[in-house]
Amino acid sequence: MDKFLHEHPVTPRTEGEKKAVVNRLKRIEGQVRGIQKMVDEDRYCVDILVQISAINAALKKVGFEVAERHVKHCVSDAVTSGQGNEAIEELMEVMKRFSK
Amino acid sequence: MDKFLHEHPVTPRTEGEKKAVVNRLKRIEGQVRGIQKMVDEDRYCVDILVQISAINAALKKVGFEVAERHVKHCVSDAVTSGQGNEAIEELMEVMKRFSK
Amino acid sequence: MDKFLHEHPVTPRTEGEKKAVVNRLKRIEGQVRGIQKMVDEDRYCVDILVQISAINAALKKVGFEVAERHVKHCVSDAVTSGQGNEAIEELMEVMKRFSK
Amino acid sequence: MDKFLHEHPVTPRTEGEKKAVVNRLKRIEGQVRGIQKMVDEDRYCVDILVQISAINAALKKVGFEVAERHVKHCVSDAVTSGQGNEAIEELMEVMKRFSK
Repeated sequence: MDKFLHEHPVTPRTEGEKKAVVNRLKRIEGQVRGIQKMVDEDRYCVDILVQISAINAALKKVGFEVAERHVKHCVSDAVTSGQGNEAIEELMEVMKRFSK
Repeated sequence: MDKFLHEHPVTPRTEGEKKAVVNRLKRIEGQVRGIQKMVDEDRYCVDILVQISAINAALKKVGFEVAERHVKHCVSDAVTSGQGNEAIEELMEVMKRFSK
Repeated sequence: MDKFLHEHPVTPRTEGEKKAVVNRLKRIEGQVRGIQKMVDEDRYCVDILVQISAINAALKKVGFEVAERHVKHCVSDAVTSGQGNEAIEELMEVMKRFSK
Repeated sequence: MDKFLHEHPVTPRTEGEKKAVVNRLKRIEGQVRGIQKMVDEDRYCVDILVQISAINAALKKVGFEVAERHVKHCVSDAVTSGQGNEAIEELMEVMKRFSK
Protein backbone atom coordinates (compact mmCIF):
# COMPACT_ATOMS: atom_id res chain seq x y z
CA MET A 1 0.00 0.00 0.00
CA ASP A 2 2.60 2.55 -0.92
CA LYS A 3 0.46 4.16 -3.57
CA PHE A 4 -3.07 5.29 -2.92
CA LEU A 5 -5.87 6.21 -5.31
CA HIS A 6 -5.78 9.88 -4.27
CA GLU A 7 -3.65 12.51 -2.60
CA HIS A 8 -6.60 14.20 -0.94
CA PRO A 9 -10.20 13.33 -0.10
CA VAL A 10 -12.54 13.97 -3.06
CA THR A 11 -14.53 16.34 -0.87
CA PRO A 12 -12.07 18.50 1.11
CA ARG A 13 -12.46 18.34 4.89
CA THR A 14 -14.10 21.47 6.28
CA GLU A 15 -12.21 23.49 8.90
CA GLY A 16 -14.68 22.15 11.47
CA GLU A 17 -14.00 18.56 10.48
CA LYS A 18 -10.25 19.08 10.60
CA LYS A 19 -10.45 20.72 13.99
CA ALA A 20 -12.55 17.90 15.47
CA VAL A 21 -10.06 15.22 14.36
CA VAL A 22 -6.99 17.26 15.34
CA ASN A 23 -8.44 17.91 18.80
CA ARG A 24 -8.95 14.20 19.39
CA LEU A 25 -5.41 13.53 18.22
CA LYS A 26 -4.09 16.23 20.55
CA ARG A 27 -5.82 14.48 23.43
CA ILE A 28 -4.22 11.18 22.35
CA GLU A 29 -0.84 12.91 22.13
CA GLY A 30 -1.37 14.06 25.71
CA GLN A 31 -2.21 10.51 26.77
CA VAL A 32 1.03 9.24 25.19
CA ARG A 33 2.96 11.90 27.12
CA GLY A 34 1.10 10.83 30.25
CA ILE A 35 2.46 7.29 29.87
CA GLN A 36 6.00 8.64 29.52
CA LYS A 37 5.51 10.30 32.89
CA MET A 38 4.17 7.06 34.37
CA VAL A 39 7.27 5.21 33.17
CA ASP A 40 9.51 7.94 34.62
CA GLU A 41 7.73 7.63 37.96
CA ASP A 42 8.20 3.85 37.73
CA ARG A 43 4.47 3.20 37.95
CA TYR A 44 3.04 -0.31 38.08
CA CYS A 45 3.15 -2.22 34.78
CA VAL A 46 -0.54 -3.15 34.78
CA ASP A 47 -1.52 0.48 35.30
CA ILE A 48 0.61 1.42 32.27
CA LEU A 49 -0.92 -1.38 30.19
CA VAL A 50 -4.43 -0.16 31.00
CA GLN A 51 -3.45 3.31 29.74
CA ILE A 52 -1.91 1.91 26.55
CA SER A 53 -5.15 -0.03 25.94
CA ALA A 54 -7.10 3.20 26.38
CA ILE A 55 -4.97 4.96 23.76
CA ASN A 56 -5.38 2.10 21.34
CA ALA A 57 -9.15 2.30 21.81
CA ALA A 58 -9.10 6.08 21.27
CA LEU A 59 -7.02 5.69 18.09
CA LYS A 60 -9.39 3.03 16.78
CA LYS A 61 -12.28 5.41 17.36
CA VAL A 62 -10.59 8.20 15.40
CA GLY A 63 -9.71 5.69 12.69
CA PHE A 64 -13.29 4.51 12.34
CA GLU A 65 -14.46 8.11 12.00
CA VAL A 66 -11.89 8.77 9.30
CA ALA A 67 -12.98 5.53 7.60
CA GLU A 68 -16.67 6.40 7.82
CA ARG A 69 -16.11 9.80 6.22
CA HIS A 70 -13.97 8.09 3.59
CA VAL A 71 -16.77 5.70 2.64
CA LYS A 72 -19.38 8.46 2.70
CA HIS A 73 -17.34 10.70 0.40
CA CYS A 74 -14.46 9.10 -1.52
CA VAL A 75 -15.87 5.58 -1.89
CA SER A 76 -19.43 6.75 -2.54
CA ASP A 77 -18.16 9.20 -5.15
CA ALA A 78 -16.24 6.40 -6.88
CA VAL A 79 -19.32 4.18 -6.80
CA THR A 80 -21.61 6.77 -8.36
CA SER A 81 -19.08 7.45 -11.10
CA GLY A 82 -18.93 3.73 -11.86
CA GLN A 83 -15.43 3.17 -10.47
CA GLY A 84 -16.35 1.68 -7.13
CA ASN A 85 -14.41 -1.59 -7.19
CA GLU A 86 -10.92 -0.12 -7.02
CA ALA A 87 -11.93 2.20 -4.16
CA ILE A 88 -13.65 -0.64 -2.31
CA GLU A 89 -10.63 -2.92 -2.61
CA GLU A 90 -8.39 -0.15 -1.30
CA LEU A 91 -10.82 0.33 1.59
CA MET A 92 -10.88 -3.36 2.53
CA GLU A 93 -7.09 -3.52 2.37
CA VAL A 94 -6.69 -0.69 4.85
CA MET A 95 -9.46 -2.06 7.12
CA LYS A 96 -7.57 -5.37 7.30
CA ARG A 97 -4.46 -3.59 8.54
CA PHE A 98 -6.45 -1.47 10.85
CA SER A 99 -8.27 -4.37 12.50
CA LYS A 100 -5.07 -6.14 13.53
CA MET B 1 -9.67 -2.67 37.20
CA ASP B 2 -9.52 0.50 39.24
CA LYS B 3 -7.33 -1.01 41.89
CA PHE B 4 -4.15 -2.85 41.09
CA LEU B 5 -2.03 -5.19 43.22
CA HIS B 6 0.85 -2.73 43.36
CA GLU B 7 1.77 0.94 42.95
CA HIS B 8 5.18 0.15 41.48
CA PRO B 9 6.90 -2.84 39.87
CA VAL B 10 8.40 -5.19 42.49
CA THR B 11 11.80 -4.68 40.87
CA PRO B 12 12.20 -0.96 40.04
CA ARG B 13 12.91 -0.18 36.37
CA THR B 14 16.53 0.78 35.80
CA GLU B 15 17.27 4.17 34.24
CA GLY B 16 18.20 2.32 31.03
CA GLU B 17 14.87 0.48 30.97
CA LYS B 18 12.93 3.68 31.57
CA LYS B 19 14.83 5.51 28.85
CA ALA B 20 14.21 2.75 26.29
CA VAL B 21 10.43 2.79 26.87
CA VAL B 22 10.21 6.60 27.04
CA ASN B 23 12.13 6.93 23.76
CA ARG B 24 9.71 4.61 22.00
CA LEU B 25 6.79 6.57 23.43
CA LYS B 26 8.37 9.84 22.26
CA ARG B 27 8.54 8.41 18.76
CA ILE B 28 4.88 7.41 19.00
CA GLU B 29 4.03 10.92 20.24
CA GLY B 30 5.79 12.26 17.14
CA GLN B 31 3.75 9.93 14.94
CA VAL B 32 0.52 11.21 16.52
CA ARG B 33 1.62 14.78 15.81
CA GLY B 34 2.43 13.71 12.26
CA ILE B 35 -1.16 12.62 11.75
CA GLN B 36 -2.42 15.96 13.00
CA LYS B 37 -0.33 17.58 10.27
CA MET B 38 -1.74 15.18 7.68
CA VAL B 39 -5.28 16.13 8.72
CA ASP B 40 -4.40 19.82 8.55
CA GLU B 41 -3.02 19.33 5.03
CA ASP B 42 -6.23 17.47 4.15
CA ARG B 43 -4.36 14.31 3.18
CA TYR B 44 -6.12 11.27 1.76
CA CYS B 45 -8.15 9.25 4.30
CA VAL B 46 -6.53 5.90 3.46
CA ASP B 47 -3.07 7.39 3.95
CA ILE B 48 -4.14 8.61 7.40
CA LEU B 49 -5.63 5.22 8.26
CA VAL B 50 -2.37 3.48 7.36
CA GLN B 51 -0.52 5.81 9.75
CA ILE B 52 -3.04 5.20 12.54
CA SER B 53 -2.57 1.44 12.04
CA ALA B 54 1.19 1.92 12.33
CA ILE B 55 0.81 3.74 15.65
CA ASN B 56 -1.49 1.05 16.96
CA ALA B 57 1.12 -1.56 16.04
CA ALA B 58 3.89 0.47 17.72
CA LEU B 59 1.80 0.85 20.89
CA LYS B 60 1.06 -2.88 20.95
CA LYS B 61 4.79 -3.55 20.70
CA VAL B 62 5.56 -1.29 23.66
CA GLY B 63 2.69 -2.87 25.56
CA PHE B 64 3.99 -6.37 25.00
CA GLU B 65 7.42 -5.33 26.26
CA VAL B 66 5.89 -3.82 29.37
CA ALA B 67 3.85 -7.02 29.81
CA GLU B 68 6.86 -9.28 29.34
CA ARG B 69 8.87 -7.42 31.96
CA HIS B 70 5.83 -7.54 34.23
CA VAL B 71 5.63 -11.34 33.97
CA LYS B 72 9.39 -11.76 34.38
CA HIS B 73 9.46 -9.64 37.52
CA CYS B 74 6.16 -8.93 39.27
CA VAL B 75 4.28 -12.12 38.32
CA SER B 76 7.33 -14.38 38.76
CA ASP B 77 8.00 -12.83 42.15
CA ALA B 78 4.39 -13.47 43.19
CA VAL B 79 4.64 -17.07 41.98
CA THR B 80 7.83 -17.82 43.90
CA SER B 81 6.34 -16.35 47.06
CA GLY B 82 3.28 -18.59 46.66
CA GLN B 83 0.87 -15.81 45.69
CA GLY B 84 0.82 -16.33 41.96
CA ASN B 85 -2.90 -16.73 41.32
CA GLU B 86 -3.95 -13.17 42.11
CA ALA B 87 -1.12 -11.74 39.99
CA ILE B 88 -1.93 -14.10 37.11
CA GLU B 89 -5.60 -13.19 37.15
CA GLU B 90 -4.71 -9.50 37.11
CA LEU B 91 -2.37 -10.18 34.18
CA MET B 92 -5.01 -12.03 32.14
CA GLU B 93 -7.53 -9.29 32.83
CA VAL B 94 -5.26 -6.61 31.42
CA MET B 95 -4.22 -8.79 28.45
CA LYS B 96 -7.91 -9.18 27.54
CA ARG B 97 -8.33 -5.42 27.41
CA PHE B 98 -5.10 -5.02 25.58
CA SER B 99 -5.92 -7.54 22.85
CA LYS B 100 -9.15 -5.80 21.83
CA MET C 1 -27.68 -4.29 16.04
CA ASP C 2 -30.69 -6.56 16.37
CA LYS C 3 -32.34 -5.20 13.28
CA PHE C 4 -30.59 -4.96 9.96
CA LEU C 5 -31.44 -3.01 6.83
CA HIS C 6 -32.15 -6.18 4.84
CA GLU C 7 -32.97 -9.86 5.18
CA HIS C 8 -30.92 -10.83 2.15
CA PRO C 9 -28.15 -9.29 0.01
CA VAL C 10 -29.55 -6.99 -2.67
CA THR C 11 -27.82 -9.15 -5.29
CA PRO C 12 -28.37 -12.82 -4.36
CA ARG C 13 -25.17 -14.85 -3.90
CA THR C 14 -24.56 -17.17 -6.84
CA GLU C 15 -24.24 -20.91 -6.15
CA GLY C 16 -20.50 -20.57 -6.80
CA GLU C 17 -20.17 -17.77 -4.25
CA LYS C 18 -22.12 -19.71 -1.64
CA LYS C 19 -20.05 -22.82 -2.21
CA ALA C 20 -16.75 -20.93 -1.86
CA VAL C 21 -17.75 -19.43 1.50
CA VAL C 22 -19.31 -22.67 2.80
CA ASN C 23 -16.17 -24.63 1.89
CA ARG C 24 -14.00 -22.24 3.86
CA LEU C 25 -16.36 -22.49 6.81
CA LYS C 26 -16.28 -26.29 6.60
CA ARG C 27 -12.50 -26.13 6.82
CA ILE C 28 -12.80 -23.87 9.87
CA GLU C 29 -15.32 -26.28 11.40
CA GLY C 30 -12.73 -29.04 10.91
CA GLN C 31 -10.09 -26.90 12.62
CA VAL C 32 -12.38 -26.38 15.61
CA ARG C 33 -12.89 -30.16 15.83
CA GLY C 34 -9.12 -30.56 15.60
CA ILE C 35 -8.68 -28.45 18.72
CA GLN C 36 -11.21 -30.58 20.59
CA LYS C 37 -9.02 -33.57 19.79
CA MET C 38 -5.93 -31.72 20.98
CA VAL C 39 -7.62 -30.96 24.29
CA ASP C 40 -8.70 -34.61 24.64
CA GLU C 41 -5.10 -35.71 24.04
CA ASP C 42 -3.99 -33.17 26.64
CA ARG C 43 -1.74 -31.36 24.19
CA TYR C 44 0.46 -28.46 25.24
CA CYS C 45 -1.38 -25.19 25.90
CA VAL C 46 0.78 -23.07 23.60
CA ASP C 47 0.20 -25.48 20.74
CA ILE C 48 -3.56 -25.15 21.29
CA LEU C 49 -3.31 -21.34 21.44
CA VAL C 50 -1.46 -21.27 18.11
CA GLN C 51 -4.30 -23.26 16.55
CA ILE C 52 -6.96 -20.99 18.04
CA SER C 53 -5.08 -17.99 16.59
CA ALA C 54 -5.07 -19.70 13.19
CA ILE C 55 -8.85 -20.18 13.32
CA ASN C 56 -9.37 -16.56 14.32
CA ALA C 57 -7.25 -15.48 11.35
CA ALA C 58 -9.22 -17.76 9.00
CA LEU C 59 -12.54 -16.41 10.31
CA LYS C 60 -11.34 -12.83 9.86
CA LYS C 61 -10.42 -13.64 6.26
CA VAL C 62 -13.89 -15.05 5.54
CA GLY C 63 -15.41 -12.05 7.28
CA PHE C 64 -13.47 -9.58 5.16
CA GLU C 65 -14.60 -11.36 2.01
CA VAL C 66 -18.22 -11.21 3.14
CA ALA C 67 -17.71 -7.53 3.96
CA GLU C 68 -16.09 -6.75 0.61
CA ARG C 69 -18.95 -8.34 -1.31
CA HIS C 70 -21.36 -6.46 0.94
CA VAL C 71 -19.77 -3.10 0.07
CA LYS C 72 -19.55 -3.97 -3.64
CA HIS C 73 -23.23 -4.93 -3.82
CA CYS C 74 -25.48 -3.83 -0.95
CA VAL C 75 -23.68 -0.62 0.06
CA SER C 76 -22.91 0.41 -3.54
CA ASP C 77 -26.53 -0.19 -4.48
CA ALA C 78 -27.69 2.00 -1.60
CA VAL C 79 -25.22 4.72 -2.61
CA THR C 80 -26.36 4.81 -6.24
CA SER C 81 -30.00 5.00 -5.16
CA GLY C 82 -29.17 7.97 -2.90
CA GLN C 83 -29.55 6.08 0.39
CA GLY C 84 -25.93 5.43 1.15
CA ASN C 85 -25.62 6.93 4.62
CA GLU C 86 -27.77 4.42 6.47
CA ALA C 87 -26.01 1.49 4.77
CA ILE C 88 -22.58 3.01 5.49
CA GLU C 89 -23.38 3.54 9.15
CA GLU C 90 -24.58 -0.07 9.43
CA LEU C 91 -21.34 -1.18 7.75
CA MET C 92 -19.10 0.80 10.11
CA GLU C 93 -21.02 -0.50 13.11
CA VAL C 94 -20.42 -4.12 12.14
CA MET C 95 -16.76 -3.44 11.21
CA LYS C 96 -16.21 -2.04 14.71
CA ARG C 97 -17.49 -5.25 16.28
CA PHE C 98 -15.57 -7.33 13.84
CA SER C 99 -12.23 -5.60 14.47
CA LYS C 100 -12.26 -6.27 18.22
CA MET D 1 6.86 -21.23 16.62
CA ASP D 2 7.13 -24.73 15.20
CA LYS D 3 8.74 -26.13 18.27
CA PHE D 4 7.30 -25.69 21.73
CA LEU D 5 8.86 -26.19 25.15
CA HIS D 6 6.58 -29.14 25.92
CA GLU D 7 4.34 -31.75 24.33
CA HIS D 8 1.85 -31.67 27.19
CA PRO D 9 0.96 -29.35 30.07
CA VAL D 10 3.21 -29.95 33.11
CA THR D 11 0.09 -30.67 35.16
CA PRO D 12 -2.24 -32.87 33.07
CA ARG D 13 -5.71 -31.46 32.49
CA THR D 14 -8.33 -33.22 34.63
CA GLU D 15 -11.27 -34.90 32.89
CA GLY D 16 -13.46 -32.05 34.15
CA GLU D 17 -11.16 -29.43 32.67
CA LYS D 18 -11.01 -31.22 29.33
CA LYS D 19 -14.77 -31.57 29.23
CA ALA D 20 -15.36 -27.89 29.97
CA VAL D 21 -13.08 -26.75 27.13
CA VAL D 22 -14.37 -29.37 24.67
CA ASN D 23 -17.97 -28.39 25.40
CA ARG D 24 -17.23 -24.76 24.61
CA LEU D 25 -15.50 -25.79 21.40
CA LYS D 26 -18.48 -27.96 20.43
CA ARG D 27 -20.70 -24.92 20.83
CA ILE D 28 -18.33 -22.90 18.63
CA GLU D 29 -18.36 -25.72 16.07
CA GLY D 30 -22.15 -25.48 16.07
CA GLN D 31 -21.94 -21.72 15.53
CA VAL D 32 -19.65 -22.24 12.52
CA ARG D 33 -22.17 -24.72 11.08
CA GLY D 34 -24.87 -22.15 11.74
CA ILE D 35 -23.08 -19.64 9.53
CA GLN D 36 -22.83 -22.20 6.72
CA LYS D 37 -26.61 -22.50 6.89
CA MET D 38 -26.97 -18.72 6.81
CA VAL D 39 -24.84 -18.56 3.67
CA ASP D 40 -26.88 -21.34 2.07
CA GLU D 41 -30.07 -19.43 2.84
CA ASP D 42 -28.44 -16.31 1.33
CA ARG D 43 -28.84 -14.33 4.53
CA TYR D 44 -27.88 -10.67 4.77
CA CYS D 45 -24.10 -10.02 4.89
CA VAL D 46 -24.20 -7.87 8.02
CA ASP D 47 -26.12 -10.57 9.88
CA ILE D 48 -23.40 -13.07 8.90
CA LEU D 49 -20.65 -10.66 9.98
CA VAL D 50 -22.25 -10.24 13.40
CA GLN D 51 -22.24 -14.04 13.82
CA ILE D 52 -18.59 -14.30 12.73
CA SER D 53 -17.71 -11.60 15.28
CA ALA D 54 -19.52 -13.62 17.95
CA ILE D 55 -17.48 -16.73 17.13
CA ASN D 56 -14.26 -14.76 17.22
CA ALA D 57 -15.20 -13.45 20.66
CA ALA D 58 -16.06 -16.97 21.87
CA LEU D 59 -12.74 -18.32 20.56
CA LYS D 60 -10.84 -15.51 22.26
CA LYS D 61 -12.57 -16.39 25.51
CA VAL D 62 -11.57 -20.05 25.26
CA GLY D 63 -8.04 -18.96 24.32
CA PHE D 64 -7.73 -16.73 27.36
CA GLU D 65 -8.84 -19.59 29.60
CA VAL D 66 -6.28 -21.90 28.05
CA ALA D 67 -3.67 -19.16 28.49
CA GLU D 68 -4.61 -18.54 32.12
CA ARG D 69 -4.29 -22.22 33.00
CA HIS D 70 -1.00 -22.27 31.11
CA VAL D 71 0.42 -19.43 33.21
CA LYS D 72 -0.94 -20.90 36.46
CA HIS D 73 0.62 -24.29 35.77
CA CYS D 74 3.31 -24.50 33.08
CA VAL D 75 4.77 -21.00 33.40
CA SER D 76 4.53 -20.94 37.22
CA ASP D 77 6.20 -24.34 37.37
CA ALA D 78 9.04 -23.07 35.17
CA VAL D 79 9.40 -19.97 37.33
CA THR D 80 9.64 -21.91 40.61
CA SER D 81 12.25 -24.23 39.11
CA GLY D 82 14.31 -21.22 38.03
CA GLN D 83 13.63 -21.56 34.30
CA GLY D 84 10.97 -18.94 33.91
CA ASN D 85 12.43 -16.77 31.15
CA GLU D 86 12.15 -19.27 28.32
CA ALA D 87 8.56 -20.12 29.28
CA ILE D 88 7.65 -16.43 29.59
CA GLU D 89 9.11 -15.59 26.19
CA GLU D 90 7.16 -18.48 24.64
CA LEU D 91 4.02 -17.16 26.35
CA MET D 92 4.48 -13.61 25.07
CA GLU D 93 5.14 -14.87 21.56
CA VAL D 94 1.86 -16.77 21.46
CA MET D 95 -0.06 -13.90 23.07
CA LYS D 96 1.18 -11.59 20.29
CA ARG D 97 -0.24 -13.90 17.66
CA PHE D 98 -3.38 -14.38 19.60
CA SER D 99 -4.08 -10.67 20.02
CA LYS D 100 -4.00 -9.93 16.29
